[in-house]
Amino acid sequence: MNQPPGATSLHPIGIYDSGIGGLTVARALSKVLPNEDFIYFGDTAHLPYGDKSTAAIQAYSVKISEVLLRQPVKAILIACNSASAAAFELVKEYAGSKAIVLNVIDPVVDFIKTNYAGKKIGLIGTRQTVQSNVYLKKLNALDLEIQLSSLATPLLAPMIEEGFFNNNISHNVIHEYLDSPVLNGIEALILGCTHYPLISKEIEEYYKGRVAVIDSSDLAGKAMAAELSKLGILNEKGMGTKRFFVSDYTRSFAESTQIFFGEKAELEHYPLWE
Amino acid sequence: MNQPPGATSLHPIGIYDSGIGGLTVARALSKVLPNEDFIYFGDTAHLPYGDKSTAAIQAYSVKISEVLLRQPVKAILIACNSASAAAFELVKEYAGSKAIVLNVIDPVVDFIKTNYAGKKIGLIGTRQTVQSNVYLKKLNALDLEIQLSSLATPLLAPMIEEGFFNNNISHNVIHEYLDSPVLNGIEALILGCTHYPLISKEIEEYYKGRVAVIDSSDLAGKAMAAELSKLGILNEKGMGTKRFFVSDYTRSFAESTQIFFGEKAELEHYPLWE
Repeated sequence: MNQPPGATSLHPIGIYDSGIGGLTVARALSKVLPNEDFIYFGDTAHLPYGDKSTAAIQAYSVKISEVLLRQPVKAILIACNSASAAAFELVKEYAGSKAIVLNVIDPVVDFIKTNYAGKKIGLIGTRQTVQSNVYLKKLNALDLEIQLSSLATPLLAPMIEEGFFNNNISHNVIHEYLDSPVLNGIEALILGCTHYPLISKEIEEYYKGRVAVIDSSDLAGKAMAAELSKLGILNEKGMGTKRFFVSDYTRSFAESTQIFFGEKAELEHYPLWE
Repeated sequence: MNQPPGATSLHPIGIYDSGIGGLTVARALSKVLPNEDFIYFGDTAHLPYGDKSTAAIQAYSVKISEVLLRQPVKAILIACNSASAAAFELVKEYAGSKAIVLNVIDPVVDFIKTNYAGKKIGLIGTRQTVQSNVYLKKLNALDLEIQLSSLATPLLAPMIEEGFFNNNISHNVIHEYLDSPVLNGIEALILGCTHYPLISKEIEEYYKGRVAVIDSSDLAGKAMAAELSKLGILNEKGMGTKRFFVSDYTRSFAESTQIFFGEKAELEHYPLWE
């Protein structure tokens, strides 16, 4: 019996991110699991996580997990690569007896394991995600001779957040990064940040079909569905009620949810400490 | 007697910012006042302030002022336009009986008052700074028929922080912003963010001398010198000892200090809440 004690099919799924990027994951999740209720927590007071230290991200993650467990939730999905890299093991330890804990990295690793043994793969992400070497360690552990080339692309998340995509600036920034020799000869590129689905088309256009673009949002949504199903706690008849909390409220976040989540979302202010 | 009780010439000056941008102000200050000791506080755990709410910036500012007053400091310089806009009146109320409180906006307003009566002026800054209308209110209050056109340029600070300046990308982003019709016909442009001194040359090149570029760092440094001198608490024989605190420590901040401050600075970790 793997099911965490107390978790039932009727409880919501908790999803958290440093801000609004994780809404791309929430969107993918609500497509795969339209009947599930979920509670989204965006730690906008500490956004972005990409340049924060591991210790800071761990502290924020524990605090947010506390908030989610109080709801309570049956699962926690860490919808941020930086937090998945820095705090997954900790959150699993902290919350794992009460809720399933999933991240956005393992589903990607599983996908690569199945499809890219012996190949060269690229990774783009925040400085925190790339420097953590989390993808490298997990792929090396598979022992499938998968070669990983990682490139920190720290301007992409703020660029997307500020609305620069599908335009001249995003075109230039994306080209400048992807032209890097580090990514030469890759067969697939991992979008290692939950903001990047918003520029996946531009990245696909850059590669003109030569390189597969791997989006963690879809894979994470499917992994959650598989896990809930395996434990028999899928909610197949729910209303799909959604609540969105942010640790700092600004109008600009409220406006961005439309872009990231694909529909209007009402943000509720929930300060973590202050 | 205007001097705050307890403030003596020997006490250090406190400077704070959301992160490392304010180091351009610290740099300007240490040029004008080489004998002053100062304590710099970069609230890197909450960086950037530009997209945070007014209430959040006010809470962080009070917390940081508390830390600085405990040193104690004889003056607090808010080296961040977003925080100057959101929290100057509050910090003055909170700390004004113990220390001089200055911001980076008033020295610019004074400069414009002297040099640009009846002219059209431009302002670029974060969303927080522009939406606060703080420059507009202060300039209108002068009643000198100064016309202000403001443009939020939220990608500039992260762009500079990620090391994109004096290159093709910064060139494109700067041009994209400055091409905005909002800034047509201005005679001077206020750099309303303490990151922007690092791209002031590129902005000057864009305008080819047609528009004066107003850098708040230098003006703020001079304003502090004038205020300390007026109150008779200048430190003219000190060692100019400097300490740098950050609320979150990462290697990337440590590396950036060289660029922003112009010399290596040892960062000490001082968590605010967590």
